[in-house]
Amino acid sequence: MTEVVIAGIGQTAVGEHWEISLRELALYATEAAIQDAGGLRPQALFVGNMLSPILSKQAHLGALLADFTGLTGIEAVAVEAAGASGGAALRQGYLAVASGLVDAVLVVGVEKFNDVVGAEIDSALATSSDSDFEAIQGMTPTSQAALLMRRYMHEYNVPSDGLAGFPITAHANGVGNQYAMFQKAIKPETYAKAGMISEPLNMFDMAPNADGAAALVLTRAELLPHDFHHPLVRIAGSALASDTLALHDRSDPLYFEAVHLSTGKAIKQAGITLDQIDLFEYFDAFSIYAAIELESAGLAIRGQGWKLAAEGEIAMNGRLPCATLGGLKARGNPGGATGVYQAVEATLQLRGQAGANQIPDARYAMVQSLGGPASTAVTHILQRMD
Amino acid sequence: MTEVVIAGIGQTAVGEHWEISLRELALYATEAAIQDAGGLRPQALFVGNMLSPILSKQAHLGALLADFTGLTGIEAVAVEAAGASGGAALRQGYLAVASGLVDAVLVVGVEKFNDVVGAEIDSALATSSDSDFEAIQGMTPTSQAALLMRRYMHEYNVPSDGLAGFPITAHANGVGNQYAMFQKAIKPETYAKAGMISEPLNMFDMAPNADGAAALVLTRAELLPHDFHHPLVRIAGSALASDTLALHDRSDPLYFEAVHLSTGKAIKQAGITLDQIDLFEYFDAFSIYAAIELESAGLAIRGQGWKLAAEGEIAMNGRLPCATLGGLKARGNPGGATGVYQAVEATLQLRGQAGANQIPDARYAMVQSLGGPASTAVTHILQRMD
Repeated sequence: MTEVVIAGIGQTAVGEHWEISLRELALYATEAAIQDAGGLRPQALFVGNMLSPILSKQAHLGALLADFTGLTGIEAVAVEAAGASGGAALRQGYLAVASGLVDAVLVVGVEKFNDVVGAEIDSALATSSDSDFEAIQGMTPTSQAALLMRRYMHEYNVPSDGLAGFPITAHANGVGNQYAMFQKAIKPETYAKAGMISEPLNMFDMAPNADGAAALVLTRAELLPHDFHHPLVRIAGSALASDTLALHDRSDPLYFEAVHLSTGKAIKQAGITLDQIDLFEYFDAFSIYAAIELESAGLAIRGQGWKLAAEGEIAMNGRLPCATLGGLKARGNPGGATGVYQAVEATLQLRGQAGANQIPDARYAMVQSLGGPASTAVTHILQRMD
Repeated sequence: MTEVVIAGIGQTAVGEHWEISLRELALYATEAAIQDAGGLRPQALFVGNMLSPILSKQAHLGALLADFTGLTGIEAVAVEAAGASGGAALRQGYLAVASGLVDAVLVVGVEKFNDVVGAEIDSALATSSDSDFEAIQGMTPTSQAALLMRRYMHEYNVPSDGLAGFPITAHANGVGNQYAMFQKAIKPETYAKAGMISEPLNMFDMAPNADGAAALVLTRAELLPHDFHHPLVRIAGSALASDTLALHDRSDPLYFEAVHLSTGKAIKQAGITLDQIDLFEYFDAFSIYAAIELESAGLAIRGQGWKLAAEGEIAMNGRLPCATLGGLKARGNPGGATGVYQAVEATLQLRGQAGANQIPDARYAMVQSLGGPASTAVTHILQRMD
């Protein structure tokens, strides 16, 4: 098997970029990643994007971004799997290099929510759920997450501020990330007083839709110079799994089967056990997703995922640090770019370049992106090679 | 290198399916393909689709279709490259099997234009061109093709009915294809009298937007039984290339550089020369595309592509049969499904299952899908193995 490594990483600040276009965001992240990879020129581009055809009236992002980033002519396609689009693009890039048919690929996640405002975004986001049976009833991903959260709290007798640990951890970690949308810690009282979005889900239980782009250059290890200027990070495991699109089609809505499947496959491919993971970049688009994800991945007993956050076990100095550079909640959630941001951040950790947020001696990172309530789950295990 | 073969093919009739939903179309094609593959169960699904997020308000097609076709849980993503989406999905499926990490994949192309009507479709189609610089001026793919056609006819002194050979060939071949939207031949007089869409492009110079789904099952040759019930067809060459999205960014608009690049790579990988190709499923979304494609692929001298059609060289009994089961013009053009239909049809030819339209002793087929004016070009060389 070909060893696939991450040769370069790049990212823009996450936020509301009213003055920067989608293609420019992608360009900035790409330039940074190619420079970080020592100028390695990719032969293929995989774009992770969720909503550009609707929000920016721009599809065909593969060709557009290949050309705009100065790579005119190379293989280029867009990959879509709702919120997991960035993770899915990374998976396609991995498969391309692993096939031995492509030497180096560029993976770009890019999203621009702020071309439009308000209800238009909600309507666009709802295209990731079942249009004929969910969206048509007026359901949005947020209202669905609120239903999930209520059911979870009911089943497991979770107190009203039981999930507060997720946003508190995220915001604490966002302080050390210069690219994060929110670089300010929050207190438990702030969470307790926060306005409700869709009861019991408050404004801190959901990550903000944001603009941003992140990029990765992947290649085969043997194509890099022996004195490569970064510690080498390889993709030790890669897996994507799906589940029903509609939540009502599941016998157990409080368990993410696709998380279970993709985590198991990726861990098995990496040849490790879950307790060897040094950090976990989970997908906290909603606090409730993070709780169920920890449980479905096998990192918490069912009904106890929220306690890992409440008891500090996922904090920077905890047993399993999560969302180490702010997660979706504090870094921001730029849709199809998010999965690529997660991999960029995990790479920073494994290289020892995470600054104030560095997890000491990090060797294995698990990165997981979800589309909808884990209708898609993509899991990657990244490993520092030396 | 792993040998990737086409184990199963399936397709629905192409047409206006007002009464069948997108997911049902995908299901019918999938069931046919899996049955044709002897029940082989795929572990991954690559969906080629162009406009469902806009026209059907349904994104996240990977998870949706994996579940709806009874494959809940498998790896599943959507791939988008405008009109080349189907070809691009085939390319991703090929890479996945070639990597050795996935044993069998399902490639489904599906499109449903007839969820909406009229201007909404034109506006959606325009998202495949450059939104900021082309679509915003009111340009649609059809009006752009008309400009290209006018320039081509001017540069090369082509008579007013010079391109008639393309639709005449397509319609002649559609007669023998039970899945084609139009199964009726047309006469030169019919072309000459046809109403103009955007001068000089008339209603026969463009393929009809249609609904349909086609599917392929790919696997490694060694995983099939020795007495497999179909002649084996392998993917001997696979390549995808890009070009500028905006036509005005090209120094020579009458040459499709991405066609040149992807044809060259695919032919080289297959280890053959162009004159070994027995049939060519080109991308006649517009007559002018077919003419320029023949030239850019190296199958005609520049300015002479139209003569191949006019002089019968691409007819069923000609030197290089093209659009052998009707092409986009007569079979119909169901957007992201089209590239998969092309591969299904080429497989029928190579297996000797093309009925009245059979090309005798066909051994090599070239299949090419375009996104926009070849802003994306995907080329596959299929080969009968025995």
